[in-house]
Formats: sequence, structure tokens, C-alpha cells
Amino acid sequence: MPAPIDFYFDFSSPYGYLASEQIDALAARHGRDVVWRPILLGVVFQQTGGQPLLNIPLKGGYARHDLARSARLLGLPFQLPSTFPFLSVAACRAFYWLRDQDPAGAVALAKALYREAFGKGGDIDSGEAVLRIAESAGVGVGVGVGDAGGAGRAGGAGEMAAALNDPAVKQRLRDEVSQAISKGVFGSPLFVVDGEPFWGHDRLDQVDLWLQRGGW
Amino acid sequence: MPAPIDFYFDFSSPYGYLASEQIDALAARHGRDVVWRPILLGVVFQQTGGQPLLNIPLKGGYARHDLARSARLLGLPFQLPSTFPFLSVAACRAFYWLRDQDPAGAVALAKALYREAFGKGGDIDSGEAVLRIAESAGVGVGVGVGDAGGAGRAGGAGEMAAALNDPAVKQRLRDEVSQAISKGVFGSPLFVVDGEPFWGHDRLDQVDLWLQRGGW
Repeated sequence: MPAPIDFYFDFSSPYGYLASEQIDALAARHGRDVVWRPILLGVVFQQTGGQPLLNIPLKGGYARHDLARSARLLGLPFQLPSTFPFLSVAACRAFYWLRDQDPAGAVALAKALYREAFGKGGDIDSGEAVLRIAESAGVGVGVGVGDAGGAGRAGGAGEMAAALNDPAVKQRLRDEVSQAISKGVFGSPLFVVDGEPFWGHDRLDQVDLWLQRGGW
Repeated sequence: MPAPIDFYFDFSSPYGYLASEQIDALAARHGRDVVWRPILLGVVFQQTGGQPLLNIPLKGGYARHDLARSARLLGLPFQLPSTFPFLSVAACRAFYWLRDQDPAGAVALAKALYREAFGKGGDIDSGEAVLRIAESAGVGVGVGVGDAGGAGRAGGAGEMAAALNDPAVKQRLRDEVSQAISKGVFGSPLFVVDGEPFWGHDRLDQVDLWLQRGGW
């Protein structure tokens, strides 16, 4: 089995949302799995002097236009949340906590969070919002999310809620971000294929070609 | 005849070089002309807070890798000049001075300058270098570049050389850059197709599709 593709992204990254709707199918066409790796771009920007794309004069206005246009081309709904950029710490913690117990569920949660934020323009920055979306998406059920009284459900909403403030989960996220930076990750989305980094939603074409040709 | 495509670029922009090798053929497939519009990104960055891509921590290292990889994919030679980023003022002045007399020659000059800088890693920041490249490329001949004694040549190297320090040419470049900024140009390469802006070499695919479909 060839190595999986690493998919680094920030839940606050709209181009990450576009990529999140394509990367699994792209990888599957080449017999590859995808490891979803949410990070906190704000921490990266402290080192690179970067700033949120949409806040940059001229470039920000263009990016809003480009995002809507790219989403139309892909047939994806697109709307920016009213609060943007937003903190994605809760989303990341929920993701990593869930992944250790239910990797597929964590990916489903990531997709649901992205769709809420950029497909519907909803806010996903609070722990409450993350818990609500997890429950709506039916993920985390059986490992603590959802109504404890529901049939077939183990645990309750309290477990994921507690995880969001669990020092071990907080440290886990810090470690993931540090590891990503140490590997040279500086933006979102960023894909690593067999050690080769590709940055940007607009590099998915090259990722596809790289997998097809085995590099060039 | 449909409107031409505006192609904004800085001679110091390596992704602009990649685009310069593709845009004319792409446009021709759709029956479009291209208006080549060199600008000075440094002036733009004063307003946007931008900085040369390759100087940015982490991102700069990636960009060097990405540029070489993208050039390989296109089958283009690629090498960064020893001085990089460099001042492209002389190149821009020569271009606009020549365009008023020989538009096709100006485009040929632009391509020759780009190939020297990023195909061969040569320096094109000085007026001397620009004049040498113009002569090698056989452009500007007949309107002042080249050896005055050569058969069939009007003028001499002196005319383009003088133009590089002509206050009217200097002002012309300032006006071109100001107009570009007033139209929202903030990066290189940047294409405008029927009023629709596309930023980045990696948006040529969308430019192609936009021309094919008439938008989406």
C-alpha cells in the first residue's frame, strides 16, 4: 500500500474548504489514503510574518472574488462566515480527540465543519458550534457526542465538550502544529505526497499528475 | 474582434516568466490578442504591504522548489538570477519605449528578457544588460537599437539607451504602474479577461476555461 497523502489545512481557510471537497476522491483514484491534519495558521504566521489572506489590501478583495468563482466552477456552495477569519482551535481539538477513536468520523466531522463555515457561512469558532455540528453530522456518536439517552448511543455530549478543555487534547494540538511547522508547512491547504509538498488548492492538478506519473 | 487579454507582470517575477511562455498561445487558441503590461511590483507592495515571495520564511523556500518543479512540468529551462529579486525599471522603460514604435518587437524583447533572467539565470537589472539583450534578440533594430553602422539599421544603440533616461519614458512607466494599481492589479502575473481578473500562473487553466465558456 503506497503512503497516504498528508492534507494540512486550517478550518478557517476557505481554499482549504475547496480542497476538502476534492482531496479524498483524487487520492482514491490513485489508490491512496489521506491523512487529514488540521493546523492553526495563526501560529505559523507568527513565524512567517504572514497574515490572513482576505485582510490584505487589494489581494483580499481579489481573493473573495476568486473563491466564489472557483467554488462556482466546482459546483460547490460558497459563503464566508460573518466572523472571518475565525479561531479554529475548538474545531481542531474536537478533530484530534475524535480521530484517536474514530478516524473516519473525524474526517466526516472536518467536512461537516467546513461545509457549515464556507458552504453555509455559519460560525464554527465556538466549542458549542463544534459540538452542535458534530451531533448534526452524527459523528462522535458512540464515543461521547450526542444525547446520552438516545438509543444505541454511548457516552454523551459531555465527553467531546470535556475534551475541548482537556489539557492532554490541548497539548496534542500544540504538538501537531509544531510538527507541521517543523516539516515546513506554512499555508493551507498544503499537501505532501511521498515527501513532495504542494501548496494551494490550485496545486491539486499537479498533485494529481504527480501521483499519475510518480513525479517528474 | 473580441477584446485582448491584459497580461500584467513584473520582469522580476519568476511565475510571470512561466506565464510569458504560455499566454500568447493560450490567447491565440481563442482568437484573442494579448496586451503585455510590465509593472513594478515594488510600488504595488508599498500599498499592499506585500514582499518578494522568495524572501518570505518557509514560503520562499517552497516557492523555489515549486518554480523549478513547475518549469520542469512545462519543459522550460529555469534558473534564478544571482541577484534576486532585482530592479526591473530599465526593462520596463525599454519595453514601453519600444512598444510605441514596434509592439511585436516589445513583446519579443519581453520574452528575451524573461528567458535571460529565469531561463539562464542572467542579470537584467541594468540598462546595459537590457540593451545587450535587445540587440541579441534583434529587437529595437530599425528604431534605434544596435550598431548604427549595420546594414539596414536605422538609429543606433544610443536611442534606446537615451530612452532609458528620458523623463517622458520615466513618466510613462509611472503612469502605467499607477493605472494598473487603480485597476486593482496587485501581483504578477495577473490576467484580465473581459474585465475578469485572474491572479497567478496557476490560474491559466481558469483563464483558458473562461475564454472557452465565456465565463461561468
